[in-house]
Amino acid sequence: MSYPALPKPSAAIRNSTPIEYFESPEALLEKASHERFAVVFCDGKVYSLWKSLIDALCRETPVITIAGGEESKTLPSLRRLWKKLWQYKVDKGQKVLVIGGGSTLDVSGFAAATWKRGVPFVSVPTSLIAQIDAAFGGKVGINFRQGKNLLGTYAHPESIWILPAFLTTLDERSLKAGWVEGYKHALLEGGELWEEIQATSFSALPSTLILQKLVSVKLRYVQEDPYEEKGIRQALNLGHTLGHIWESLSQREEKPLLHGEAVAMGLVQEAFVSVQMGLLPEKVWETILSKLKGEKVLSPLPSFTWKQWEKLLSQDKKIREGRVFIPLLLEVGRVALQAIPVERLKKVVRMYPSWLHA
Amino acid sequence: MSYPALPKPSAAIRNSTPIEYFESPEALLEKASHERFAVVFCDGKVYSLWKSLIDALCRETPVITIAGGEESKTLPSLRRLWKKLWQYKVDKGQKVLVIGGGSTLDVSGFAAATWKRGVPFVSVPTSLIAQIDAAFGGKVGINFRQGKNLLGTYAHPESIWILPAFLTTLDERSLKAGWVEGYKHALLEGGELWEEIQATSFSALPSTLILQKLVSVKLRYVQEDPYEEKGIRQALNLGHTLGHIWESLSQREEKPLLHGEAVAMGLVQEAFVSVQMGLLPEKVWETILSKLKGEKVLSPLPSFTWKQWEKLLSQDKKIREGRVFIPLLLEVGRVALQAIPVERLKKVVRMYPSWLHA
Repeated sequence: MSYPALPKPSAAIRNSTPIEYFESPEALLEKASHERFAVVFCDGKVYSLWKSLIDALCRETPVITIAGGEESKTLPSLRRLWKKLWQYKVDKGQKVLVIGGGSTLDVSGFAAATWKRGVPFVSVPTSLIAQIDAAFGGKVGINFRQGKNLLGTYAHPESIWILPAFLTTLDERSLKAGWVEGYKHALLEGGELWEEIQATSFSALPSTLILQKLVSVKLRYVQEDPYEEKGIRQALNLGHTLGHIWESLSQREEKPLLHGEAVAMGLVQEAFVSVQMGLLPEKVWETILSKLKGEKVLSPLPSFTWKQWEKLLSQDKKIREGRVFIPLLLEVGRVALQAIPVERLKKVVRMYPSWLHA
Repeated sequence: MSYPALPKPSAAIRNSTPIEYFESPEALLEKASHERFAVVFCDGKVYSLWKSLIDALCRETPVITIAGGEESKTLPSLRRLWKKLWQYKVDKGQKVLVIGGGSTLDVSGFAAATWKRGVPFVSVPTSLIAQIDAAFGGKVGINFRQGKNLLGTYAHPESIWILPAFLTTLDERSLKAGWVEGYKHALLEGGELWEEIQATSFSALPSTLILQKLVSVKLRYVQEDPYEEKGIRQALNLGHTLGHIWESLSQREEKPLLHGEAVAMGLVQEAFVSVQMGLLPEKVWETILSKLKGEKVLSPLPSFTWKQWEKLLSQDKKIREGRVFIPLLLEVGRVALQAIPVERLKKVVRMYPSWLHA
């Protein structure tokens, strides 16, 4: 039985948003000294850790701090940023600087993209997940009524400035969760990159070269299909259908899952769906499970009812006659969009807890 | 003294959004019978006047009514529409139908454009101003803290369906206010169109041909400069800098100005700024004033303080060293962007009340 794999994007990188890497805080400062910003939106934790750098970066520009994490991707938080743009009378001839992890970039980018129909913004991703994934691809937005990213638009920053040094102050949990998204990029890519990430510890700081390799996987999918119309970009959603559900459900818990942690669960679960459908050799799934377990990025399921679970699934994916369309792994480096019976997803979810203890 | 006029857009119409005109409600029904919509957003007044048509148009599709007018362009109203899209689990493979005047199209289009990063929508403009202006050009959005259209994005409907018969149930005040925007289009165009509109009563129903001629003026400006980057599309803002201020200020009054009524005030005031700057012969201004006065579309100024007035101006336009950039009339059919001292605008505003009684 053979399935048509999703077409792989061509190797040529056609990125219209300039991405710059900076070897030192001083190099970033030098770059920023040539720009003027009307306002700076900055993750509060990053600001406290890098206060002198960010103050030097911003000079007289007002800095608005944002409590990072999923809880900042809400309508009240968006409304607060709009109010700041109003207060500082930001107009289309000015620019906004955004500094932070994925959530900060998402909500801030959405605020900028919808203020007076769009003011330019420059993104400075500070977490690993933002430096290899969230800052790229032009998706901005917030959550709505428990649904991930239900409100949003496509908007590219004017530039993306990457200072890998920010990762030195990242807590280990966030670092590991960031590697998961890199692991997914490597799963899509296969080959040498896959071998390299398999052999890399998720507690290690990535080299700039690895950051660039991982980003380039994402960018090729994005550039071939920026608006997810061709069934190409959807491959990036590997592990995210179930992952988003766990992430949403965990928001009400004392210690919500990080995005990467939720995706790790989704990756291993969705890979097993592939196995069950005869699409993927069980050995590949074992390799993935063993790596993610070994890195201690797999968490227990958050508490939920199947009713809640189905409601979240139905907002994320259209269910037609009890099936949802999701990207599934055929082998390392090959993915296809598949119609999956909802019951099959449930069955795999029920098996998941046993894998954690095996 | 000569000023560089704004470049006029080329005559070629390159509109990627199909616009269809329907001779009868039956023809529109026939068209709609080939489409399926997930949800319908409809102006409540239009729904009550055209219930049987709209029910037939929508068949089993849920109809969400919206209280039209500027007061619907608010964050709570937008939030309500997002909630409906959530409730009916609208996804990117589905479409939204929007029926109503400019405000309904603005808020509904913004809701659709930001739901899951954009679901397609079809616009059915029902007022004169929507049929010749608001439905076209891809601007959607809402007001924020008294500022007109401060939140929004660019999003084009998938199609625009125009049933001129809707205008037969429009109240005379709205009809006249709609003609004002057509008058502005004719001022930009000059020539025969200008002569024709000068000779047309604002109480008359426009022919389909006139609707098309007026739309085509707007579309050419939009197509040459869709994102207002080239100083071409700004010409369409003629009369709107002051107009928007009157519209915003009047929202707190018992009987708020209609958009077209506010623009009529702005047109005659901004034309006088041209006269005072030696850009426009006084006779042209007299012609405009006389026509708009004769049609009884000029209202007294709403009550305001200069502090409120300046605050609204500063959100709409960047003030640099006491000047704002606005499009000004050089002659009928010719407009240029000019830096105007704020004091000059104030002076003309102070003169306006005397013109109403002269």
